[in-house]
Amino acid sequence: MTKRVGLKYICLKDFHLPLNTTPVQIDKVAAKVKKAGLLLYGGGVIYMNSEADVHRAFDYAKAAGMKVIVGVPKPELLTLVNKKVQQYDIKVAIHNHGPGDKNYPTPASAYERIKDLDKRIGLCNDIGHTQRAGVNPSVSAEKFADRLLDVHIKDVSAATAKGRGVEVGRGVIDIPKFLRTLLKINYSGVVAFEYEKNADDPLAGLAESVGYVRGVLAAIPVFTGTSLPLRKQG
Amino acid sequence: MTKRVGLKYICLKDFHLPLNTTPVQIDKVAAKVKKAGLLLYGGGVIYMNSEADVHRAFDYAKAAGMKVIVGVPKPELLTLVNKKVQQYDIKVAIHNHGPGDKNYPTPASAYERIKDLDKRIGLCNDIGHTQRAGVNPSVSAEKFADRLLDVHIKDVSAATAKGRGVEVGRGVIDIPKFLRTLLKINYSGVVAFEYEKNADDPLAGLAESVGYVRGVLAAIPVFTGTSLPLRKQG
Repeated sequence: MTKRVGLKYICLKDFHLPLNTTPVQIDKVAAKVKKAGLLLYGGGVIYMNSEADVHRAFDYAKAAGMKVIVGVPKPELLTLVNKKVQQYDIKVAIHNHGPGDKNYPTPASAYERIKDLDKRIGLCNDIGHTQRAGVNPSVSAEKFADRLLDVHIKDVSAATAKGRGVEVGRGVIDIPKFLRTLLKINYSGVVAFEYEKNADDPLAGLAESVGYVRGVLAAIPVFTGTSLPLRKQG
Repeated sequence: MTKRVGLKYICLKDFHLPLNTTPVQIDKVAAKVKKAGLLLYGGGVIYMNSEADVHRAFDYAKAAGMKVIVGVPKPELLTLVNKKVQQYDIKVAIHNHGPGDKNYPTPASAYERIKDLDKRIGLCNDIGHTQRAGVNPSVSAEKFADRLLDVHIKDVSAATAKGRGVEVGRGVIDIPKFLRTLLKINYSGVVAFEYEKNADDPLAGLAESVGYVRGVLAAIPVFTGTSLPLRKQG
């Protein structure tokens, strides 16, 4: 599906590649992804609730050649995460999960906890959960631009906890403004589609979402040069 | 599929509703479309190679409640078509089919033949075939704005006869410019997606195309009022 909609980068979740997979098996999966013409840039969301989880996450990411762990480490594990980031040179993007997430409901709450750590620890701004927490994703992306390492792009039906995932463009998020913001801050990471509606048959909704984002980018005047990172990354 | 991608208007082809269907059966199909929440605005492309074909096309459109016939009448039948348009008050949008179409390769060639007829006879600008004929769809849409009654939106892989249909946004047509042109000329008709790639499994490509067009429209500054006809029509 990723190839069919013309994307080039992929992030795997334990759903696709279990965290307890052996390094040899991980290598085989990574080779399969590469053979398909995709770049396995990251893994996640990976929850880390113990020191063992942290060690496992980094070994997993290293074995798969991932550059970024989109992760949710318990706050008390951040010191260990900081050491591992320096040891492995693998980034960790803390994923905000909206209202109900007691540690990282918003990008701001994650930023507060990591701002003094290694700069390779930053944020994965999940704009759906950001909006569900009542925070404008464009504002938070700009405010924490120095630590924005990954983006989960999506749309939601309401700017409250009750908001549910919908096709990008059909919800309440101002996507053109968000993409203009990424261009403005010279964001150089990946914008990853996390499409969760129609989980048993997601292709059409994913395709519509990808098309929408490409359409917005094509219509942004500054962007028509076609050589900026966002477009190159599909 | 039309409903799933959030479109509201539909045009049926003989592939969906054969031209020799009885009025009673046509009525049943029209009721089915209406029940699905779609507006059956037109029929086509309908070829008319004889006087009998012309009579049949208008009776078919009338029985189905169609407002527009997207048609290809032989040029010598245009006088009859003109009479039928006045008699039935149903529009006829002449469809250009690109290089290889000896009567109507381009919007200009169609316009030349209908410009002195009833104003309800106009053009369906198939922007894929227009571009394949080496003509800029935006230029032709603006030049013949007074007779633009329907649009087949799509994208093509090359601006030559060899161009093949692709997902909107992946081809050579400047879609943002084309949509800006439609807004500029206050186009009030339907923009119909004619997606012909992956004919056996078109949903993903259609969805991507629809998403792209919505994204472009969302990013056009003048368009953010959200109340213009194009967005209302999905």
